[in-house]
Amino acid sequence: MLKVGIYGASGYTGQELLRLLIGHPDVDVVAITSRKFKGTPVSEVYPAFAGMTNLKFVDSSPQQLVPSCDVVFLALPHGEAMLVAPVFVEAGVKVIDLSADFRLRDVSVFEAWYTKHTAPDLLEKAVYGLPELYRDDIKGSNLVANPGCYPTSIILGLAPLLREGCIDPSSIIADSKSGVSGAGRDLQLGSLFCEVNEGFKAYKVGSHRHTPEIEQELGRIANTAITVSFTPHLLPVNRGILSTIYADLKGKISQSEITDIYQKFYADEKFVRICSADSLPNISSVRGSNFCDIGFVADGRTGRVVIISAIDNLVKGASGQAVQNMNLMYGLPEGAGLDSISLFP
Amino acid sequence: MLKVGIYGASGYTGQELLRLLIGHPDVDVVAITSRKFKGTPVSEVYPAFAGMTNLKFVDSSPQQLVPSCDVVFLALPHGEAMLVAPVFVEAGVKVIDLSADFRLRDVSVFEAWYTKHTAPDLLEKAVYGLPELYRDDIKGSNLVANPGCYPTSIILGLAPLLREGCIDPSSIIADSKSGVSGAGRDLQLGSLFCEVNEGFKAYKVGSHRHTPEIEQELGRIANTAITVSFTPHLLPVNRGILSTIYADLKGKISQSEITDIYQKFYADEKFVRICSADSLPNISSVRGSNFCDIGFVADGRTGRVVIISAIDNLVKGASGQAVQNMNLMYGLPEGAGLDSISLFP
Amino acid sequence: MLKVGIYGASGYTGQELLRLLIGHPDVDVVAITSRKFKGTPVSEVYPAFAGMTNLKFVDSSPQQLVPSCDVVFLALPHGEAMLVAPVFVEAGVKVIDLSADFRLRDVSVFEAWYTKHTAPDLLEKAVYGLPELYRDDIKGSNLVANPGCYPTSIILGLAPLLREGCIDPSSIIADSKSGVSGAGRDLQLGSLFCEVNEGFKAYKVGSHRHTPEIEQELGRIANTAITVSFTPHLLPVNRGILSTIYADLKGKISQSEITDIYQKFYADEKFVRICSADSLPNISSVRGSNFCDIGFVADGRTGRVVIISAIDNLVKGASGQAVQNMNLMYGLPEGAGLDSISLFP
Amino acid sequence: MLKVGIYGASGYTGQELLRLLIGHPDVDVVAITSRKFKGTPVSEVYPAFAGMTNLKFVDSSPQQLVPSCDVVFLALPHGEAMLVAPVFVEAGVKVIDLSADFRLRDVSVFEAWYTKHTAPDLLEKAVYGLPELYRDDIKGSNLVANPGCYPTSIILGLAPLLREGCIDPSSIIADSKSGVSGAGRDLQLGSLFCEVNEGFKAYKVGSHRHTPEIEQELGRIANTAITVSFTPHLLPVNRGILSTIYADLKGKISQSEITDIYQKFYADEKFVRICSADSLPNISSVRGSNFCDIGFVADGRTGRVVIISAIDNLVKGASGQAVQNMNLMYGLPEGAGLDSISLFP
Repeated sequence: MLKVGIYGASGYTGQELLRLLIGHPDVDVVAITSRKFKGTPVSEVYPAFAGMTNLKFVDSSPQQLVPSCDVVFLALPHGEAMLVAPVFVEAGVKVIDLSADFRLRDVSVFEAWYTKHTAPDLLEKAVYGLPELYRDDIKGSNLVANPGCYPTSIILGLAPLLREGCIDPSSIIADSKSGVSGAGRDLQLGSLFCEVNEGFKAYKVGSHRHTPEIEQELGRIANTAITVSFTPHLLPVNRGILSTIYADLKGKISQSEITDIYQKFYADEKFVRICSADSLPNISSVRGSNFCDIGFVADGRTGRVVIISAIDNLVKGASGQAVQNMNLMYGLPEGAGLDSISLFP
Repeated sequence: MLKVGIYGASGYTGQELLRLLIGHPDVDVVAITSRKFKGTPVSEVYPAFAGMTNLKFVDSSPQQLVPSCDVVFLALPHGEAMLVAPVFVEAGVKVIDLSADFRLRDVSVFEAWYTKHTAPDLLEKAVYGLPELYRDDIKGSNLVANPGCYPTSIILGLAPLLREGCIDPSSIIADSKSGVSGAGRDLQLGSLFCEVNEGFKAYKVGSHRHTPEIEQELGRIANTAITVSFTPHLLPVNRGILSTIYADLKGKISQSEITDIYQKFYADEKFVRICSADSLPNISSVRGSNFCDIGFVADGRTGRVVIISAIDNLVKGASGQAVQNMNLMYGLPEGAGLDSISLFP
Repeated sequence: MLKVGIYGASGYTGQELLRLLIGHPDVDVVAITSRKFKGTPVSEVYPAFAGMTNLKFVDSSPQQLVPSCDVVFLALPHGEAMLVAPVFVEAGVKVIDLSADFRLRDVSVFEAWYTKHTAPDLLEKAVYGLPELYRDDIKGSNLVANPGCYPTSIILGLAPLLREGCIDPSSIIADSKSGVSGAGRDLQLGSLFCEVNEGFKAYKVGSHRHTPEIEQELGRIANTAITVSFTPHLLPVNRGILSTIYADLKGKISQSEITDIYQKFYADEKFVRICSADSLPNISSVRGSNFCDIGFVADGRTGRVVIISAIDNLVKGASGQAVQNMNLMYGLPEGAGLDSISLFP
Repeated sequence: MLKVGIYGASGYTGQELLRLLIGHPDVDVVAITSRKFKGTPVSEVYPAFAGMTNLKFVDSSPQQLVPSCDVVFLALPHGEAMLVAPVFVEAGVKVIDLSADFRLRDVSVFEAWYTKHTAPDLLEKAVYGLPELYRDDIKGSNLVANPGCYPTSIILGLAPLLREGCIDPSSIIADSKSGVSGAGRDLQLGSLFCEVNEGFKAYKVGSHRHTPEIEQELGRIANTAITVSFTPHLLPVNRGILSTIYADLKGKISQSEITDIYQKFYADEKFVRICSADSLPNISSVRGSNFCDIGFVADGRTGRVVIISAIDNLVKGASGQAVQNMNLMYGLPEGAGLDSISLFP
C-alpha cells in the first residue's frame, strides 16, 4: 500500500482528493494537513465523510510528514506550494503539485503572471502532468505539476488537430465556462449563493492566469509560439467546465476526417471520450468522473471547427488527474480509484 | 457472478441501478429492458455511461429473461410490476420490485390508494425491503418489495423512538421535501426546469400514496394502528429527500437519552449515520451514497422531538436500497457495490 | 413627495427597499447610508441599478439625516437599530425599523432571545407592522417594527383559524423554508454557492429568534399564551419563504368552511391571496411581489389542518411590507409602489 | 387607451407580454388567445397573475379579434404567425410578430432555414424591430418583426464597432448562452429540470436558425455580406442571455477609444447600458428588465476585441422589446411600461 499525504487538504480540491484516495485500492492516506482545521476530524468539516474515515486534520510541517509518506499531494495556493515542494523532493518523497507553481517552464513567464519564484531550479525537473501528452515523462518523475482545470479542457480539446496541422495556430479562441467549486471554498462576495445563482458572467477576460499555461502547452504541440484568446465564465453549477473552442481550418476538412483524427489520437486513452456531433458534451455527463468528453463540428460555412470539451473541474481538472498521475508514477493501473460512473442526474 | 436483469430500465431509477450494479464486484448485468429504447445502447440514452458499458436496451418479455437471470429488479410503474413479478417468482428468479405493488400487506388498503391488484396472493410472500428492520426476512425472501423513498426516510427516522415507546403515536407529522428526480423522467409540465427552478411547493397534501405505506410500517413498529400527517414538497434539486418529523414526547426525555436510543438502535447499521444536534443532516452530504443521516432535537419548550432524516432518493430511497437487499438475499457483504463517498459539492 | 432615507442600505434588504422606493410615485429617496460603501454609487455595488438612479452611499450620522428626511427605514442588524431609532423618533422623523429591535413588547423576552435593550421605553410606542392585523395602529404610529420574514408567513397563515377558535393553540407546528437572501449578504461559509446549491437542511431547530415573535403575535390573536414548534430550513433559491403549518382542528370543520373563514378574514386585503386546494402556494408565484399566498387542506383522516403560505422574504417578508407600512403612515394608497406582478419564471 | 390583443398567449413569451402590458399605463389588454387554455382564467394557468387580472384565454380567430384591437402581438410558433398576420394587416390592425416569420428579407434565405413562406409579399413591408437601429422605420410601420433573442444580444453588441469599421467582418464569432425559458413551455425531454440543472451544453452548433438573422443584420450595418460562427448554449437558469463575441480589430484600438465609440453610438438609448471593463455584464443585473448591458475588452495581446452583452431573453429578447416597438408605433414614451428595475437577487 502506498502511503499518501495531502498537504493543504481543507478546500474542495483537497477533500475531492481524499474522496478518491479513500476509494483507491492501493493507497493508505496517512496524513491530511490544514492549519485552520488542526485536530478536527474531516467528517466534521465535510459530513459526507462520516462513517468513511476517521482521519483528522493535522498541522504538520513538510519535514514532519516526510518519514511517513511515499508521495504527497500539494493542494495549496499558488506561491505556497513552491515553499514546501523542495523539502519533499529533496527527501525523496514524490510530489504531485496541484497549484500553478511548477507548470510554467519559463521562470520569467511565471513571474510575469504570478509572483517571484522561490524554487526556480525545480522547474526543469517538473513534468507537466497531462497523461494523454506526457505519460512516459510522468512515469519517471518525482515532481509532477498537475495541470490547471481550464488548460486541461482546452489542451485535450485542441491537441489532435494542432498536432496534425489542421488548424491555424493564430486563430484559436477558447470560451470556457466553469462551475463555482473552481473558485474554492474561500469567503468571497462573488462566491455567495445569491451572487451566483441565476447569474452568468465572464471574468478576467484576456487576463486569466491560465493563459500562459494554455499557450505553453499548445505551443509545444504545434512547435510554434501560440497566442490564444481565453475567456473564462462563471456557471451557476457546483462542478464542471465546458470549453467551446474555435479555430480556422486549414483547407477543407470534413467532419468524418476530423472524427478519425480524434479517434486515432485518443484511441488508447481510458479517460477521453469522443462524442458524435449529435450528442455533444454536457458537463452533467462527466460529473464526479475523470472523463474528458470531446465533440466537434466542422463548419463548412465559416471554414472553422468548433470543438467542445467537458470535464469535472474537481476530477479531471484537478484531483482525479492528480490520482491518475500518481498511478502512473507508481506503475499502478492508470484508472485505479477512478472507475466510478458519473453521477447523473 | 450473479446474473442480474433490470426490467424497465429507462428511467432515473433504472439507470441508477445500472450505475451501482456496473460498479458491483459480484454482479453481471445481463439484460436491461425498455420498450421505448429497444436496440439503443444505454450510453446513447445516458451519455454518462459511455465507456463504462456496452449494454443495449432490449424489449424482452419476462419469459425471455428468465433463463438468463438469477435475480431481476423491476423498475416499472405501479400496476405494471404486479403483471410481471409472478412470472419471475414462479420460474425461480428472485425479484426485487421498486414499485409500490408489493409493499402493502392488506389488499384492500392497496386497492383503496392505488388500483386493482392482480397478484394478491404474492402479497403475503413479499418482504418489505428495509434491511434495518427486516434483515432476516429479506435474506430468505424471493420477492422483496423495495420501500418507497419518502417512507424510507420517515420510518428510519422514527423507528428507534417508536419502538422504545418514547413518543405518542397519534402525534406524528412528517414534513418531507424531495428533489425532482423523484418524479421520474416522464414529460410533465410540473417537471420542466422553469416550473421548478427557484420555486418550492407542497403537493398531494394529506393524500400522497406513500401515506399507507408509512402508516403500515410505523404501526408494525409501535404495535398499534397509526395515522400520520404526511406532506411532500418539491425541492429544486436533482437528488435528495429531507424529512422533518414531529412527535410529542411521552414525558421528559433529554437530548442525550434520545441520542443513546438512536445510537443503540443503529449500532450495527452500516448505512445509518447519527448526526449531532449541531450538525443536522443535509441532503448534500448523502448525494450519491446509500446513507441515511439522522439528527434530532429534543425541544423542552414544546415537549416535542424534531427528527430530521436525509437520504438520496435514488440511492437509499430506491436503487441503492435495492442493491442492499440483493446483497442480503445472496449472502454478499451488505455494502458491496455501495461503498462510494457522497459527491460533495 | 415624501422625503425618505434608508439607514444601512448595503445589504439585500436595503437594496430591495431602494428598488421599490425608486419605483414609488410619491417618494424621493434622499439618502442611503453605508459605512462600507461610503461615496460609492449604488449602481457600482448593485449594477442592476445602473441607469435607474445616481444615488451614492453616504456615511451620515442619524443626526445628519434628520433635517432632510420625513421618514427613515432602518435596515440595520439587530442591536444597532435601537441605537439610532431614538434619535429619529425624538426629532420627529418617522421610523420603520426592519430589525427585530422593536418587535417584542416584553423587554425580558427580547433580552432572553437577543441582547440587552438600550431603548426599552420605545418598545411600548412601537407598533408591530403587520397591516392585515394592525392597520389602524400603524396609521397613527411614529415607530413601526416591521415584522420578521418567517413570522409574517406564519402569522398570516394562522390568523383566521386562530381568531375563529377553530384550532387547538397548543398544537401548532410551523415548518418553514427560506431562500438564501434571508441570510443577508455577509460572508459566511454557509452562504457560499457550493455549500447551499443542491443542498437542503434545517437550522436552529427549536431555537430560532423569530420564535418569540411568532408566539407573541399568535398569542395576541388567540388571547392566550402560545408555544409553537418552529423549524426553519434553507432552500437553494434566491428568494421566497414557504411555511407549512400544522394544527389540530377543534371538531369537524370542512374544507369549504375553512375557505369561507379565510376569504372573509382577508376579504379586503390587497396583498393576501387565497389559493384553492388544487393550486397550493408556490414561492415562484410571489417572487418580487408583495403578495402572501395562502392555501390549506382540512385533513379528515388526521383531524388536522395543513396551512401553506408563501411570500417573497425580501418583499412581503421585509422591504415590501415596510413600504406598505409607510403608505399607511402617510395616508397614501396602501399598494403604492407595490403593484408589480411577480416575475415568473 | 390602446386596445391590445395577444395572439397565442399561453407560453412564457405570451405571459411575459401580459405581465408588461398589465403594468403599462396606456394600454388595455382586450384579448389573449390560446387554443389549449380556452375559457381558463390566466391566473389559473399562471398563478402569479392572481389578483392582477381577470382575463381569460379565448380561442378567437384573427377575424374575430380584428374589431376589438388596435394592435396585436403574435406569440405563435414559426410558420403559424405568417398565417394570421395578413388578416390583421389587411384589416388595419397593427402587428408585432414575435416569431421569425417576418425577420428575413430574402424569401429564399427564410425558406432555406425554416419552411415555405405563405405570405412573402408582406416581407418587404415588415420592419425589423430593433429600435436602436431602426427606430424611425418602426414608428411608421404596421408590421414589425420583433428580433430573436440571440440576435438582439449579438447585433447590439457588435453594431458600434461594425459601423465604425473597426473590426474585420469575416472574423466574427458569437458564443451565446441562454436560460431555459428560451426553449418555451413545451414538454421536451431536454427541458426537464433534471436534464438541465447542474448541466451545461452547446446545441445546434453552426446550424441554429438565428444565424441568417444575425448575418442579415450585421451585413446591413457593415454594408457587406457577413458569415458568423454562432454557438448557442443552454444555461441552467430561468432567464437571461449572455453573448461573448470575438472579432479581430483592424489596427490598434485602445480600450478607451472603443469605450468612446460605444458611448457615442448608444448615447441616447434608454435601454443600452455600457459597462466598464472591471464590471462586465451579468445576466442577473438585467433580469426582468428591458436593458441590454454591454461590456468589452480590447486585448492587445491577441489583436481581438471581446464584447459581452447581456439581456433578459424574455424582455429585451422578446416581450419587452415588443412593447418598446409598440410604444414607438403609437408615439408613446419609448420606455412606457418598461421602467421596472431588474430583480436581484
